[in-house]
Amino acid sequence: MASTEHDNSLGLLEGLATTRAIRRYTDDPITDEDLSTILYSATRAPTGSNRQGFRFVVLRDGPVATRAKALLGEAFRAGWGTKRATDGYDAGTGTLDDSPKARTARAMQHFVDHFEATPVVVLACVEVRHGGIQDGASVYPAVQNLLLAARALGYGGVLTGWHRMVEDELRQLTGIPETFAIAGTIPLGRPQGHHGPVRRRPVRELVFDDRWDNSADWAVDPVGTRFTSAGPKRSTTEDA
Amino acid sequence: MASTEHDNSLGLLEGLATTRAIRRYTDDPITDEDLSTILYSATRAPTGSNRQGFRFVVLRDGPVATRAKALLGEAFRAGWGTKRATDGYDAGTGTLDDSPKARTARAMQHFVDHFEATPVVVLACVEVRHGGIQDGASVYPAVQNLLLAARALGYGGVLTGWHRMVEDELRQLTGIPETFAIAGTIPLGRPQGHHGPVRRRPVRELVFDDRWDNSADWAVDPVGTRFTSAGPKRSTTEDA
Repeated sequence: MASTEHDNSLGLLEGLATTRAIRRYTDDPITDEDLSTILYSATRAPTGSNRQGFRFVVLRDGPVATRAKALLGEAFRAGWGTKRATDGYDAGTGTLDDSPKARTARAMQHFVDHFEATPVVVLACVEVRHGGIQDGASVYPAVQNLLLAARALGYGGVLTGWHRMVEDELRQLTGIPETFAIAGTIPLGRPQGHHGPVRRRPVRELVFDDRWDNSADWAVDPVGTRFTSAGPKRSTTEDA
Repeated sequence: MASTEHDNSLGLLEGLATTRAIRRYTDDPITDEDLSTILYSATRAPTGSNRQGFRFVVLRDGPVATRAKALLGEAFRAGWGTKRATDGYDAGTGTLDDSPKARTARAMQHFVDHFEATPVVVLACVEVRHGGIQDGASVYPAVQNLLLAARALGYGGVLTGWHRMVEDELRQLTGIPETFAIAGTIPLGRPQGHHGPVRRRPVRELVFDDRWDNSADWAVDPVGTRFTSAGPKRSTTEDA
């Protein structure tokens, strides 16, 4: 059955190269066993001094989860509404039904309109130590492990930050203390679409040898790699 | 030969659970091809709005690399020296040659004393946008991909932050502009030790269901899982 299929033989390198952001989900739940494996895998990631200051609040269909998903749904719709306007999704090629921009806009609208139906939403938290980017070193590797483990089991998700608009209410609702940052909100479910190779800029634009801006001649994209073809706004919210 | 062995069949889930922090390296270089795969895999990770604000400066044996490794070596030795004193590595069980604390101290001392001989050191950078933890969401997933890809190819490394002590000099030397944060320094090489299951706290201490501090009954560590057994200081710098 589609609801339980997954490919245990997926290799590590292939998994890294083919885990897309997934924003449309079927109604299939995530089983307890799979959810356990996903969270276990997340917690195998490194943290600063192995302090393990990360915590994961898993919202499914409990009393808090239902209210938290509704709160987040409002925030996501507001966030996308603002982005849609400021990034010009309804201008230029966005007015053409078949343009990548219009398709992206439809996918994002669907994502936020159906947020409350997301099978699982994970709030990834981390103890605040420095208050800067380096606190992220103790939680975002775990988030990446979480997304990769979900992909290994036939699920998918996406790391988002739109909870910030309702962070105070979300903390009140879930009890997340002020000493922990909410580093990301990660909806998870069975993809309506599918995973596959992601698109990025050519690797030589992202990797330097010996010093900044010095081309890494040894860095090559594998044959057949497809690239992000336009500016940042166009590729913003595609499954990527 | 040991220098080229790796296991292409390593599964995604197994890779996530068995990628250790590796701090002791053989003299084997990392081949151009493997380095390309490692960096390519890093850049497959997600970034905020797929903006791809991450950049990787790869230090091998070029003119800048040699000086940067020397500068970083000083910083790492100073960093470890401070940590060794403040975290009491030479007190209590640290005075017993066979204690975990003493072994950790020896491993860390070896790591910093041999820093300049590390085959490859990667500086992971990211465009500064918010100046807070969320900037890390666009670079630490890539760092985790990098470490996982290295593991897939028979290498290993560790995400560190001791470059911060010499950040100004490091920027001057490498040309990293002020508009980019140096999010992490990642030494890489062929492990003298080996990868394997990592130790963490029981998953139920890290994962909550529905609300903070609410036990996730469905979250279980696989049979045979070994745990971090002591406070944060003891497990600080083991391969973990």
